[in-house]
Amino acid sequence: MKGTMNVNQYLTPEQTQRIHEESINILQKTGILVRNQKALDIFSKRGCQLDGDVVKFPTKVIEETVKQFSPTFTFRAQDPSKDITIPDEGPIMVTGSSAPNIIDPKTGTERAATSKDIGNIAHLINHLDGFDVFSISTLADDAKDDQFSMYRFYPALKNCAKPVRSNTPTISDLEKVLKMAEIIAGSKAAYQERPFITHHYCPMISPLSMDFESTEAVIYLMEKKLPTYCTFVPTAGMTSPLSLLSGLTVGNAEFLALAVLAHAINPGTSLIYAVLSTMADMRTGDYATGAIETSILQVAHSQMAQFYNIPSGGYIGLTDSHCNDAQSGYETGLNLANAVNGGIDMMNAGGLLSSLMVFDFAKAVIDNEIALMVKKMKKGINFKEEDFLIDLVAEGGHGAQFMGHPHTFKNARKVSFFPKIAVRGLRSNWEKKNSTTAHDRAMKEAAQILSKPCQPSFSDETDQNIKDAFPGLIPENIDPTSF
Amino acid sequence: MKGTMNVNQYLTPEQTQRIHEESINILQKTGILVRNQKALDIFSKRGCQLDGDVVKFPTKVIEETVKQFSPTFTFRAQDPSKDITIPDEGPIMVTGSSAPNIIDPKTGTERAATSKDIGNIAHLINHLDGFDVFSISTLADDAKDDQFSMYRFYPALKNCAKPVRSNTPTISDLEKVLKMAEIIAGSKAAYQERPFITHHYCPMISPLSMDFESTEAVIYLMEKKLPTYCTFVPTAGMTSPLSLLSGLTVGNAEFLALAVLAHAINPGTSLIYAVLSTMADMRTGDYATGAIETSILQVAHSQMAQFYNIPSGGYIGLTDSHCNDAQSGYETGLNLANAVNGGIDMMNAGGLLSSLMVFDFAKAVIDNEIALMVKKMKKGINFKEEDFLIDLVAEGGHGAQFMGHPHTFKNARKVSFFPKIAVRGLRSNWEKKNSTTAHDRAMKEAAQILSKPCQPSFSDETDQNIKDAFPGLIPENIDPTSF
Repeated sequence: MKGTMNVNQYLTPEQTQRIHEESINILQKTGILVRNQKALDIFSKRGCQLDGDVVKFPTKVIEETVKQFSPTFTFRAQDPSKDITIPDEGPIMVTGSSAPNIIDPKTGTERAATSKDIGNIAHLINHLDGFDVFSISTLADDAKDDQFSMYRFYPALKNCAKPVRSNTPTISDLEKVLKMAEIIAGSKAAYQERPFITHHYCPMISPLSMDFESTEAVIYLMEKKLPTYCTFVPTAGMTSPLSLLSGLTVGNAEFLALAVLAHAINPGTSLIYAVLSTMADMRTGDYATGAIETSILQVAHSQMAQFYNIPSGGYIGLTDSHCNDAQSGYETGLNLANAVNGGIDMMNAGGLLSSLMVFDFAKAVIDNEIALMVKKMKKGINFKEEDFLIDLVAEGGHGAQFMGHPHTFKNARKVSFFPKIAVRGLRSNWEKKNSTTAHDRAMKEAAQILSKPCQPSFSDETDQNIKDAFPGLIPENIDPTSF
Repeated sequence: MKGTMNVNQYLTPEQTQRIHEESINILQKTGILVRNQKALDIFSKRGCQLDGDVVKFPTKVIEETVKQFSPTFTFRAQDPSKDITIPDEGPIMVTGSSAPNIIDPKTGTERAATSKDIGNIAHLINHLDGFDVFSISTLADDAKDDQFSMYRFYPALKNCAKPVRSNTPTISDLEKVLKMAEIIAGSKAAYQERPFITHHYCPMISPLSMDFESTEAVIYLMEKKLPTYCTFVPTAGMTSPLSLLSGLTVGNAEFLALAVLAHAINPGTSLIYAVLSTMADMRTGDYATGAIETSILQVAHSQMAQFYNIPSGGYIGLTDSHCNDAQSGYETGLNLANAVNGGIDMMNAGGLLSSLMVFDFAKAVIDNEIALMVKKMKKGINFKEEDFLIDLVAEGGHGAQFMGHPHTFKNARKVSFFPKIAVRGLRSNWEKKNSTTAHDRAMKEAAQILSKPCQPSFSDETDQNIKDAFPGLIPENIDPTSF
């Protein structure tokens, strides 16, 4: 029932058609500046016109590409029971990713994140039911120069059996990560059959330019038919003219251009129409990831994705707040609810403060609870005739009390969501329990989860094989520990 | 475009029809226990069957009543420019109401609220653009026994020119309030022409019972044709069997029963289909106003209201948190976004913590910002052909920067919402400014607003006339003051 039920529509079918047409107009008139020769060759071979390093797109090429779109995207996991496919199993919650810094759980102050932090975060996300995919939340400041990505993917894959998603800065790093993945899978063929890393890049530098390195990685992965998608980051008022419609249309054009490249290499490949489409704060130029405009744009992009019949989502539910205060709560809650009502399949949020710059353990636990709430919200009333229970109403009569009724007892755990972090009940009881904030309770919950032993995703033998293959990897113990 | 655009649908048309039918089934089978003889007489005269003090409703009576529903409801204000009509001018934000306690702005601790607090709150709400209607936020602990409602309505009406909404516990109180309103209006006839108080009651004690006092007030006001609506408060698992559908249907039946009474007295009267429909926390029995189930039910009730073509809304966006932490932020933000996406016309939230028990100045300021965000959200993309700006995209070219473009300059203040409470920008800048929370900034904003002089809504002469008519009213100065 997509497109009619449980989806809030901002755009009429005629308007989505107009946005599609004007996106093609941009791709024909201005085109995309491509700073990668391989990509230029592929675009040219696919039937695009080259004007120096600017690619211009005939309508026919775009329309043919749109017809190749896959309606689903599967995130695979080391543990096959944790594989998840959108849109069928969505909306899914994915952690926010690649923050350089972390709020130290002991001192409460900001510092550079390390591989050991990634081990702890992986363990936490593995445990929290609201999260479906672990996008590696931070960078690793302790990484050796030639093992930057190993210091991120090794602790992530070892401590989280859910699908792992991230990027690598170079092809050399990417090759190391894939070599490790093949060791974990048992063989190159075994990994190729069940690739449990989803690769993610932002090759498009808005407006309308593709970089060298990320584009190279996307081509490399598409040629190997490994799961990869890209996020588009137009900012209205900075990288597009200042209107929601302009930011939306430039971003849509950028998505279509990348899609042409991907399907030229690997026709019919699965992609996600993913964005972090925002409007800058026009008073200061500040990035405004938690602005209401971010979810308005996310919903509109999602409607374009529905028009193309491709899964959608993106970095939504982020906050610009620097702590777990009311702002961090409403920016995440309000924008996630709006985006999910708008039909997105993937929420790329969770765990980050300060406009993507800082990971915080308590924020991850709070966002887990919000994710469980919006997933419940998406289900709505779940209409079933047997739930009318008119006979019970009659039996109870006027002024009835159903709290102690056997039917209530039997269904208590099935019907409502039981929050772990939210408090309910009398203020006096809360004061007796030290008047804690959601941050306090979430931090306690994180510490408790991390105090439990973490079952590594792979065997000791595999672990040794990885260490043998990558001498000097992770000098200190990255096994999760309580804080 | 109601029902298709910008509205998230939980129920199919067939399902809303089934809920309507089963509501009638409840009203026929179990009926409503009515503890007010006048109401029994009116129901009987209208064609309902009486079985002792139980009223049973023929289908014909309900279907005829539904045909009388008014599609709009107008809140009138002392200042006619602040009149507001739903759904056309919605969604509107109304403060939460009648909390017994307040967080003292000086000490930060909870205490009983007074008439002086109401004066300050009225001034604050009058100033905050996100609020459209002032539902008197607290009780008044300092009130004399015979002037309870005067201690609430007088400071409210004096310091807030927006529409004022509240209830009174007795007819005697109601008569005093109306007498004051007529003095302010200049005459009985002038008030009758522009009644700037909207009366609100909860005459239905769920499940399926009507009380004496509130029912009496509703009859009194309907006979005078003064603006009045009621909120229905079913709680699934307590006052209905434990299912979302059962709570929804019992609440819908209760609304229909009240509507029959109202239209029997004043055919075609304007009502709002207003609810605070929740599901109890089945672990403890705690009230769960901030639960995700509350907004799911609100959206479903709103769909029933859309089925009946009557404005909808209710107490939504409340929090069970006791302070302005992340929980208070996401419970308000998430549930308001979901409810507004679901098509509600009125958000009855704003300013309350602790499941409706406590007013907090900072919460009111934060909720004002959230209200402005969801109103912007509701507008969506606001598609206009001239906003494509394809020529500007072409002019800027690849890697363009639109921040300094004249078009951006010209439109900067029109396009995006500028938050006052939310922080953006670098963490280091935030730390330099004392690492404040949203609560800190909101409290500062409230103090600043209250430090400005408040222009009373009515003249000194009118003020004196009120004081002459009600000797002993408000012994201490209730004019707003900074804290």
